[in-house]
Parts: sequence; C-alpha cells; structure tokens
Amino acid sequence: MTQPIAKRFPVPSIASLPDDIRTRLLAVQEKSGFVPNVFLTLAYRPDEFRAFFAYHDALMEKDSGLSKAEREMIVVATSAANQCQYCVIAHGAILRIRAKNPLLADQIAINYRKADITPRQRAMLDFAMKVSAEAHRISETDFTEIAAHGFSDDDIWDIAAISAFFALSNRMANVTAMRPNDEFYMLGRVPK
Amino acid sequence: MTQPIAKRFPVPSIASLPDDIRTRLLAVQEKSGFVPNVFLTLAYRPDEFRAFFAYHDALMEKDSGLSKAEREMIVVATSAANQCQYCVIAHGAILRIRAKNPLLADQIAINYRKADITPRQRAMLDFAMKVSAEAHRISETDFTEIAAHGFSDDDIWDIAAISAFFALSNRMANVTAMRPNDEFYMLGRVPK
Amino acid sequence: MTQPIAKRFPVPSIASLPDDIRTRLLAVQEKSGFVPNVFLTLAYRPDEFRAFFAYHDALMEKDSGLSKAEREMIVVATSAANQCQYCVIAHGAILRIRAKNPLLADQIAINYRKADITPRQRAMLDFAMKVSAEAHRISETDFTEIAAHGFSDDDIWDIAAISAFFALSNRMANVTAMRPNDEFYMLGRVPK
Amino acid sequence: MTQPIAKRFPVPSIASLPDDIRTRLLAVQEKSGFVPNVFLTLAYRPDEFRAFFAYHDALMEKDSGLSKAEREMIVVATSAANQCQYCVIAHGAILRIRAKNPLLADQIAINYRKADITPRQRAMLDFAMKVSAEAHRISETDFTEIAAHGFSDDDIWDIAAISAFFALSNRMANVTAMRPNDEFYMLGRVPK
Amino acid sequence: MTQPIAKRFPVPSIASLPDDIRTRLLAVQEKSGFVPNVFLTLAYRPDEFRAFFAYHDALMEKDSGLSKAEREMIVVATSAANQCQYCVIAHGAILRIRAKNPLLADQIAINYRKADITPRQRAMLDFAMKVSAEAHRISETDFTEIAAHGFSDDDIWDIAAISAFFALSNRMANVTAMRPNDEFYMLGRVPK
Amino acid sequence: MTQPIAKRFPVPSIASLPDDIRTRLLAVQEKSGFVPNVFLTLAYRPDEFRAFFAYHDALMEKDSGLSKAEREMIVVATSAANQCQYCVIAHGAILRIRAKNPLLADQIAINYRKADITPRQRAMLDFAMKVSAEAHRISETDFTEIAAHGFSDDDIWDIAAISAFFALSNRMANVTAMRPNDEFYMLGRVPK
Repeated sequence: MTQPIAKRFPVPSIASLPDDIRTRLLAVQEKSGFVPNVFLTLAYRPDEFRAFFAYHDALMEKDSGLSKAEREMIVVATSAANQCQYCVIAHGAILRIRAKNPLLADQIAINYRKADITPRQRAMLDFAMKVSAEAHRISETDFTEIAAHGFSDDDIWDIAAISAFFALSNRMANVTAMRPNDEFYMLGRVPK
Repeated sequence: MTQPIAKRFPVPSIASLPDDIRTRLLAVQEKSGFVPNVFLTLAYRPDEFRAFFAYHDALMEKDSGLSKAEREMIVVATSAANQCQYCVIAHGAILRIRAKNPLLADQIAINYRKADITPRQRAMLDFAMKVSAEAHRISETDFTEIAAHGFSDDDIWDIAAISAFFALSNRMANVTAMRPNDEFYMLGRVPK
Repeated sequence: MTQPIAKRFPVPSIASLPDDIRTRLLAVQEKSGFVPNVFLTLAYRPDEFRAFFAYHDALMEKDSGLSKAEREMIVVATSAANQCQYCVIAHGAILRIRAKNPLLADQIAINYRKADITPRQRAMLDFAMKVSAEAHRISETDFTEIAAHGFSDDDIWDIAAISAFFALSNRMANVTAMRPNDEFYMLGRVPK
Repeated sequence: MTQPIAKRFPVPSIASLPDDIRTRLLAVQEKSGFVPNVFLTLAYRPDEFRAFFAYHDALMEKDSGLSKAEREMIVVATSAANQCQYCVIAHGAILRIRAKNPLLADQIAINYRKADITPRQRAMLDFAMKVSAEAHRISETDFTEIAAHGFSDDDIWDIAAISAFFALSNRMANVTAMRPNDEFYMLGRVPK
Repeated sequence: MTQPIAKRFPVPSIASLPDDIRTRLLAVQEKSGFVPNVFLTLAYRPDEFRAFFAYHDALMEKDSGLSKAEREMIVVATSAANQCQYCVIAHGAILRIRAKNPLLADQIAINYRKADITPRQRAMLDFAMKVSAEAHRISETDFTEIAAHGFSDDDIWDIAAISAFFALSNRMANVTAMRPNDEFYMLGRVPK
Repeated sequence: MTQPIAKRFPVPSIASLPDDIRTRLLAVQEKSGFVPNVFLTLAYRPDEFRAFFAYHDALMEKDSGLSKAEREMIVVATSAANQCQYCVIAHGAILRIRAKNPLLADQIAINYRKADITPRQRAMLDFAMKVSAEAHRISETDFTEIAAHGFSDDDIWDIAAISAFFALSNRMANVTAMRPNDEFYMLGRVPK
C-alpha cells in the first residue's frame, strides 16, 4: 500500500512517539490488526492527541442512554454531511460491526432520512444534524421534539456533544487530508 | 444579575465539583475576578471538561508562530460566523486585551474583511473561515496562498486546529444556551 | 484618528457641502460631539443624501407602535446578518442608549435568538429577518404569527420598512467601505 | 380588472392623498395612461413615499455614465434574483422601451449571463448582483475588475446605489404583495 | 435573425438528420411556423434526442389528472428556479396559450407564490419545487399535504416526473447555451 | 428480504408487465442474478420506463471518449451530492466492478476531491458537479478549463448529459423512495 497516511503535514514514526501515545497505538494495532491513520496523523501533536482521544473516549466509550451503534450513527451522518472521507469510512466500519448490520452505514452516509432506522433514531439524527449544521438555531422546540422520543437530557447532551466533537474531527481530517486505511472498507460487511 | 449561567442542562455548584476542576475554577476566579460561565456549564461532565480544557490550552496557551492575539482573532471570526454568543463576547474581550486594541474584536465579529488587520492576518482568517465553513474544499491552492504570507506548516496546523476546536466549542455553547458573563462586555474597552 | 472615513469614493469637506446638508451635519456634531461618518460619506451625492435621511427620519424618528429601542433592534439584527460594520457599530450604540441596556446590542448582533428580549420582540425580529433575507417568501402565515403578538398592520409595515431601508443602507456602507467612528464603540456601555 | 392593487395594507384613494402626491400620480397617469400600483401602494405613507421617489429619481432620472437602459438592466437583474414580481414586470417594460429591444428584459430576468448584452454590461451586472446578494464580500478586486471595463468611480457608485435602492424596493413590494399593473406585461413588446 | 441557435456544440442541418427526426422537425415547423431550437440543438445526438422527446411526450402529451396548463406551470416554475432561459421562454409561451392567460407565465417565473393560481395549484408547485431543489428531503409529510388538495398518487408521480425531467432539460439547455427562438416571446400574449 | 422495493407508489409484478419490459427485466436478472429495483419501480409507467432506459443506454453503454468507469464516477459523485441512496449504492457497485477498484466508489461518494483519481478525472468531476448543482453558471471559462485536460467537445457533452440524466434519475429515486437491492452493497468489493 503506497498511498500516504495523510497527504498534508509530517506523520511521525511510531518509534519516535512519547511512551503513552506509542503504547496506545500498539494496543490498537494489537486489537485491530492495523493502526488507524487518525492515530498516526494526530500524533504529530502529542498534547492535542491526548486531549482528542480523551474527549473521544469520554463520549464514545462510556455508558450512555445511547447504544454504541447509535453513537456511531451520529458520527456517520454528520461526517457525511461534512464530506469527511476518513470519518465516514472508519466509523462506517465500526457502525456495521456494532449494529451487526452491513447496510446501515452506507444508507446513513448517503441519506439518513431513508435508512433502516427507528423513528427514535431518526429524531436523534435530525437533532444531531441540526447541531452539526446550524447549532445557533437549536431552540426549545427542538428539545421538546427529541424528548418526545424518550431521550433524557443526558442523552441529548450526548447527541449534541458527539455531533460537536466530530465537527472538530471532520475539519482536522479534511485539512490534514487524512486517508482512511484500506482495511476499513470491508470491515463488518461479511458476517463472521 | 439573575440571568441563568446556561438555560439548558443543570449547572453544578462549585462545591460539588471534583477537586481538580474546582481548583481550576478557583484559580480562574482568583485571576479574573469571576468564573467564566463556560467553566461551570461544561463542568457538568467532568471528563469532557478535562479534555476540552486540555485541548484548549494545547492550542491557545502554548508558544506558536501565531501571537496570542492572532489566535483570538481566529476564535472571534469563526465564532461570529457560527453565531456563538458566548465565544464572541468572551473571546472578544480576550482579543481586546491581548491586542491592546478596543475596536478590533467588534470589527472582526461583524465583518473581518473590513477590520484593521494586516494582509497576513487577513489571509490567516480567510483560511480559518474556510476550515470552519467548508473544510472539505480545502485544497493545495489554499495551502499555497497562505504559505505565501509567511505561515509555516506548523502555523497552518494551528490556524486549522483553532478553527476546528471552536467549531466544537461554538456548538456546545449554542446547545447549552451558555450565557456570556456580564463582565466580559466591558473588558479591554478602556485602557488601564 | 488616522483611519479614513470611508476607503472607497471621495469624502467631501464639510465646507464644500450645500447649505442644508452642512447645517444638518453641524447640528449632529453639536448634539453628538462628532460627525458620524455616514453623513460625510453619503454627502458625496447631495440628492441621494437628502432622500436617504428623509427616509431614515420617516421611519426612525416618528411616533410608532414600536419603541425607538425596538426599531434599533431591527437595525442591529438585520445589519449583523448583512455583515455591515458601520450599521452594527453605530446603531448598536444607539440601541444601548435607547434601551438603557449595555448588553443588548452585542447579544442581538451575534445571535438575536439568544438575546434578553421579550417573546414579542423575538417575533418582531423573526419577521424583520425574513424580510431582510427572503422577503419573497413572506406569506399570510407570517402576518398571522406576528399579529398574534399584538402588532398592528401599521407596526408590521414599520418592521418591514426598517428592515428594507437598512437592506439599502447596509449595501451602501459595505460598498463605500464606510468606517464606524471610534466614538460609537463605547457609547452607552457605561451608565451615566 | 378585479385584482387588488396590493393584497396587504390599505391602498388610499387618489382623492385622499396630499396635494403633492396626488399631483405626481395624476402626472404619471397622464403620461402613461394608468397609475402604476407602486405609487398607490406606497402613498399609504406619504413621508416614506416622498423619500422613496426622491431617491428613485436621483438615481434613475439624472444624467449618468450609465444609459437609462443600462440602469433598468440592473433593476431587472437584481429584482429577479429577489423574486420581486412588481419590479421585474414594471421595470422589464421600461427596459424594453428604453433599450428598444423586446427580448432583453425576459433574458436578463431569467439568466443575465445568457442575455444579449455587451461584456461591459455583463461586468456591470456581475457587480450589481454581488452588491445585491453579498455586499459584505465586495473587495478591491471587484472594483478593479469593473473599472477595467471603463466604468468610472461615479459609474460604480451608480451601479451600487441602484442595486441597493432596489434591495429596499423589492422587499417593500414583496411584503405589501404589490401587484404589477396588467398594462406593463405588453409594453415595449411590439415596435411602434 | 443572426443569433446562433445554441452557442455551444455544433447544430446539425435539418437535411443531415435521420429520417424520423427530420420528419418530426418538419411536422413541428408545419404546426408552429418555426423549428424550436431545442429540436435542432438536441438532434446533434439522435439517440438522446429520441429518448428525450419520448420522455417528454410521455409526460406532457398524455391524459393526466393535471391539465396541460398545470403541467406547463410546473415546467415554468422549476425552470425559472434553475435559471434556464430556453425553458422559461418557450414553455412560458405554451403556458400562456394553454391557460389562455397572458400574465400567468411571467408571474410564475418570477415568484410563483404571488401568481394568480388556485391553492391546489400552489400546493402542486410547492411539491414540484421541492422535488426540483431538494428531492432528498421529500417525506411522507409532503405526500400528505399535497394529497389533501385532491391529488392522487398518479397525479403526484406526474408532478414529480415533470419536475425531474426538466431538471435534466434545464441542465442540457444551460450547458448547450440553447437560445429561445424569438417567436416564443410574443406567443399567447395577445388574444386571437 | 422483507423491505419494500420502493416505499411509495405501487410496484408492478413482473408477470403483469408489457412484453418488451418483462423481457428486459428477465435479461437483467439472468445476467446479474437479481432484478435491480429501479427496473421494477419505474416499470409502473411503461412509456417513461422505455424512455428512461433508452436515454440511459444512449449515454452509458455506447462508445465514448470516457471510459465506462469514468462515466460511473460521474454518476456516483453527482448522485451523492443529491443524496440519492439508490444511485450511489447501485452505481457504486458498478463503478467498483468497472474500475476494478474496491475503494473508489466510497471515496468519490463522500468527497470526490480526495479520491484516488487522476487530475483529468478530477476536472471531469468538477465540471459534472457544476452541471449538477448550478448549470446556469457554466461559462466559457469552464469549457476552457476542462478542454485543457484533453476532453473533446463530444466528451464534454457526455459529461454534461450524464450529470443531467442523473439529476432526473436521482429525483425519481428519492420521490419513489426506491430501495437499493441488498446485493449491490458487496458487489465488486472482493476481487474474483
């Protein structure tokens, strides 16, 4: 595979990284079989790397009223609207795995309004998309509508925060021209 | 002043906060004379709080090819485009202080193309605004144009990362209906 | 003050102006302590100047179902959407004075949906913003909604006409690169 | 003709108008054979009426580096972008007459980029459309480009001011639901 | 008439055309008195020509719950939004003739919301415009709203298909710089 | 597979179709192993079906200066911009097969500016996207730019016509809520 990890900005070698970051990368590699390019690209700035993944984990790994698959739906829908190749490909793979559904990620990326999701998940994505595209227009009406689908205030914070965090992430991936690893494209497409 | 700190989501009392967060808030209060509402609003989620401010400090407090005033210009310009009341008011105040210029923040918030800035700063803000609004269209042409103004690749990363970080911040402030403290409005308007 | 009054088009000297215009400028200077740059910039074209200020006074100085502060709210909100530095800074100052509120102008300029205004004033600004941005979509539904807040047809005409007049004014200020006088920035920020 | 002159707001009878306004309407009627509805609709507010037509005449009736037909081109192009039925129909008629060309008004209203105009007129309309739609982005580059077509600074002011004045006019016509008189549709279509 | 039929791409001579296409052109010429330029421009590609007009006829010539005038309203409204000079001028003429109304085409082209049409026709055009501009957002709500005006599912298919077909047609006319024949401008303006 | 072929409008049974259409469907089924849902959905209207596929074949099956893979790139890029689930999934599969590249379709659908394509193909997609989104702005400059990459006028017609045809197709697929067959998602992802 001769394509660069990211076309813009230098990508550090794993050996040159601070211990904590190298350890995290090796652990991911151990688990996934490869190092997702986001780790190498962002490791160029260790302090920002640490904050980025601490934020990511606080939103995506903790217990929540949203399932892990639902959180990935938010990532895929908002990242597609932001035309972020890395995030749609990488999190599309994670969504397929977590939802055990090989079709959902592509459906959501292209037009989430036509995806095989529940009305509750549709309301979740409508809210997330509004936070992503025009948060300044979020009003009490939006909170009332989404709450009517059974989302608690804590769930709504999660939806908003994931959408906001990937607003950051999408921009960094696009500016760095971060390339999705080839491995992501097939992950979760074939049942094991 | 009876207005709420943030109209949406509960705001924790300082006494109830984890030690590290309470310590940070008290230090800010000591230095500024008040606790900016962003600290109280985001402290509702301690882990996200820690990641948020670690990221913030990594971008805004470190040494950089951009002056601190220039970094605040990026915050004000992109936050105004996102109609984020908290960020424009609070960082407008910081920009006035850091630039020792009482006019610049309002000028940049309304139309940065007409502000009293240098051509180099104008190019910086053009790039930042493109990252903020349509990062998916950032191309080599944009990199070439901004580099022609003497920005290094590291400077460009800083510009992009600040713009991206406040994309997150603006969305959280708008969703939480975070209110700028009254104190910010006058800061830096009168020379000491 | 070494910045030009307006960066584009010649600015006439007060001495060279027709009597009626010079008299008006001197009266404003007497009252305010300075000549707002809009007077000098537009005086380049005496006939247009006279029509402009006759229109302005017919809308902004007469008795109306809208308070003078409310009329300035319309100016600030629509001028901010049009990114008109002169109008936001100058009329922001007038709004602070007329509303006796040092915070309101900045709040409205950045995101009027989050400003400290009444629901009636919010409806007024929603209507004004629609006239400003997409008057071709104004429908009976819009008239019904705003009338429900107690606005008479005459009030609605006033709202629309102020929004329309500043659509003109904002474009002239942006094309002439009209600079807000430094004095405006602080007016109304400190109670007398 | 049973359609209302304007669907919104009362339309005064000619007899009830102040002398100067009634005189103007009767003069127009004498000359044109009918009273254009803009006169009756705006006469509801005599002071605004006087300022409106003083402004209109200052721009459209005076000597200028732009021909009268060129000034009407600006009105038609910008009013079409603002979807203003009254202004496109009424000024389309005037344009046909002044340009002695029965095709030009419809061409410009639909897509001025494909109209039978000179490159100089195309540059004039490009500038006018930018003033109409995004005056906050007008820059020195725009001035340089239009000046290269032989327009003086005074011509450019005229282009901008006409575009700005009809930004006002289009909004008033849309809000008042002003109806173009049936007579306008055929004017200038058949050579006399 | 010295203007080209279409400024881009070669226009074949009638003599050089395949028999079936030449026959169709001559039949149109016989009936209308001239050959509309769309026939000559698209005849450059005979197979595409045949498919284009087969599609056109299947939608526009058959029996339908929509009158022929209503179908032309859809063409004019959506083609105006797409700034397609050929389609608005040519189909505006057909609309005037089929509706026996000399005003309607211009009204709809400029702002269909202010045209002399029934509420049922307004709902038809609202649906057609949404298909034209953002079909990906068409939802059950849209189907319910339009069905409430008495449109059957077959009528709605017709509305959507006409809007979709002219999405194609408008793009081809704009890319080929297809010129409306001068004859269209006056057709249907004067009662016979 | 219990999901409907298309959620809106009746879908005819193959047995009920006219002979020529049934024959085509059975031939496709023979070749592909399944009947793509576009055939069944559009067969509801036999005449439109015939015109649609005649147009499709005239553009996509003939010899051209564009390779078949390049033509599919245009379909995928423009259909993604139109958020058309059916077209992106179905033609994404065809693109993978024709380009013998399992990654390209997803890359182009998300952000074609970052796909593994040649500068010539990038210019082709830039032109196609402009035709799709704003054909009324296509100018001689666009023709010059794309011709500089070696495209002939016939190639440019093909690019424009494919973009225009799928403007139609995307709208029909979105309005009919046409569902991509499950089989498409995996086609071309694994080398045979």
